[in-house]
Amino acid sequence: MSELSLLAGGTGTPKLLSGVRRLLDPETIAVVGNTGDDVEIGGHLVCPDLDTVLFDGGGVLDRERWWGIDGDTTATHDRLQELAAEAGLDPGPRYLPPAAQTSGRRIAQHRRFSGVAEFMKIGDHDRAVHVTRTGLLDEGYSLTEVTRLLADAFGLDISLLPMSDDPVASIVHTDEGPMHFQEFWVARRAEPAVENVEFRGAKRATATSAVREALSAPVIVGPSNPVTSVGPMAALDGLTAALTETPVVAVSPFVGDEAFSGPAPELMRGTGRDASTAGVAEAYPWVDAFVLDEADPTELARPTVRTDTHLGGPEDAERVARVALTALSEVGAEVAVEGER
Amino acid sequence: MSELSLLAGGTGTPKLLSGVRRLLDPETIAVVGNTGDDVEIGGHLVCPDLDTVLFDGGGVLDRERWWGIDGDTTATHDRLQELAAEAGLDPGPRYLPPAAQTSGRRIAQHRRFSGVAEFMKIGDHDRAVHVTRTGLLDEGYSLTEVTRLLADAFGLDISLLPMSDDPVASIVHTDEGPMHFQEFWVARRAEPAVENVEFRGAKRATATSAVREALSAPVIVGPSNPVTSVGPMAALDGLTAALTETPVVAVSPFVGDEAFSGPAPELMRGTGRDASTAGVAEAYPWVDAFVLDEADPTELARPTVRTDTHLGGPEDAERVARVALTALSEVGAEVAVEGER
Repeated sequence: MSELSLLAGGTGTPKLLSGVRRLLDPETIAVVGNTGDDVEIGGHLVCPDLDTVLFDGGGVLDRERWWGIDGDTTATHDRLQELAAEAGLDPGPRYLPPAAQTSGRRIAQHRRFSGVAEFMKIGDHDRAVHVTRTGLLDEGYSLTEVTRLLADAFGLDISLLPMSDDPVASIVHTDEGPMHFQEFWVARRAEPAVENVEFRGAKRATATSAVREALSAPVIVGPSNPVTSVGPMAALDGLTAALTETPVVAVSPFVGDEAFSGPAPELMRGTGRDASTAGVAEAYPWVDAFVLDEADPTELARPTVRTDTHLGGPEDAERVARVALTALSEVGAEVAVEGER
Repeated sequence: MSELSLLAGGTGTPKLLSGVRRLLDPETIAVVGNTGDDVEIGGHLVCPDLDTVLFDGGGVLDRERWWGIDGDTTATHDRLQELAAEAGLDPGPRYLPPAAQTSGRRIAQHRRFSGVAEFMKIGDHDRAVHVTRTGLLDEGYSLTEVTRLLADAFGLDISLLPMSDDPVASIVHTDEGPMHFQEFWVARRAEPAVENVEFRGAKRATATSAVREALSAPVIVGPSNPVTSVGPMAALDGLTAALTETPVVAVSPFVGDEAFSGPAPELMRGTGRDASTAGVAEAYPWVDAFVLDEADPTELARPTVRTDTHLGGPEDAERVARVALTALSEVGAEVAVEGER
């Protein structure tokens, strides 16, 4: 049973987690990972947000990029580019045909890409994780069970939970048509104008029982992208209800209207929100208190604690984590800090 | 339109092909590759017999092993072993569950393995071929079309044709139960006692039109394993009829009752045949003439030409190829040799 749970996207929350780990017994921390930006590529389910936590917990994350494995080689990936060029094949991203998007392995629905010219850079050691994960899924394990097995292999001391064992695909509708988030972000660098974001499958998807249990503990929402990192979780049936009932603190991924990184501004504007801390607060009606940067001029109607929220390294992360725990205590959730109990 | 076609398994015929290429314009040679020992592993269709010809034609074959790519690395494969061990997973071979054997991509039916602890050694550059092949299959290309695209990428000057675009799985029935040929051979080193060999799916599989056209030319059956290399082809509807109508020469993979390599003896005995040149002749009623080793004491009722059939290198292969063409001419098929036309 976790004492604290984090909702995690790809970069901000994993960075914050490194600070939370310094304050709490890792065994009492649960991380609920977004799976909306997962894709099947070349027949393998790639779970970028889960993997960042997995690799970081295993001590092998490339912390320059905050994805992939440090020092990994890319022999297969590079050869895939060459082969496609030599065969005269368009590098894509190459979606599988429409009929294939709703057949094949269920968890990959609406996000199936051919491996031809692999548009996401997958390292050789990284690939072994996707092959193992997909093999286990095909053998009949749920994504939750697979993630637990991988966490064992990587020696994780926290609990890592995919938000759902059902498929949810984050589709960005743009002026150039709909595309999966990974096409929008990795292949197109967030250039197409965002018109809307859809979490395809979310209506039929449920949070796992492990996630529902984790959300009975106090929750920190790290400085992740509210639209495509936290949005898919919030779209799950009953999840915002659970968040409404438990104390939740969010760390803003903005300083006023400046984002730290990633496509958050474009996605916020494209979904009709302010690209700012104010917009984040509006997107998170179930958050009880906020951690804002000391330079953030935003005034919110909910409790607010300020610190330097720039996460340059573990010391920063520890400071922000400590402030987040303070904010939680202000809304009634006392989380025991190691050495201070 | 080919002037000469070869039926190819994994080692003997590709070796012979290097000699045939020296005698004929490569553009006039078609190689029909066995696909009965293909497997899907880790979500990718691996076609060992096609790939040996593909890689050799592209100048990258590991000619020590006669499979895989020369100098290839195995970062992903090695990491798959570690990950499975770290997660406490049995290394297998791990078949997908029975229901999955008849769902998923059709061409992989009855031979679907999980990628967990990958029981076949797949190199990193090699893997890019399987990812590309499978991506194209999933996009809707036939195996014949995919093979042509890969042949273009590798710069092949011969025609390489999979025997069928339908699934045929070579299942070896043993005293330890049924297992796919690759489990029997790669994982079990041909140790279980063979009771029978089944080409699952062959009754519903057809040779492609490209193969039927290629088999209107004279045919050489190289010194491949008659049971699992040539057997799947012979099991296809109409294929032995086509072979009966065209001149066919076979090079025996035995010297009397000694096999050159591979599991041919066990498989011949297990399917009720003599593990010998006599048994091969019995298995090939549609062969018009044979090339036997000069030390082979077998006397056959059909035309026979002898030479040293040991294929140690390209000179050997050229000599055996020349003798095979001589044998073809003895049964009425004149194939124009380069520089001798």
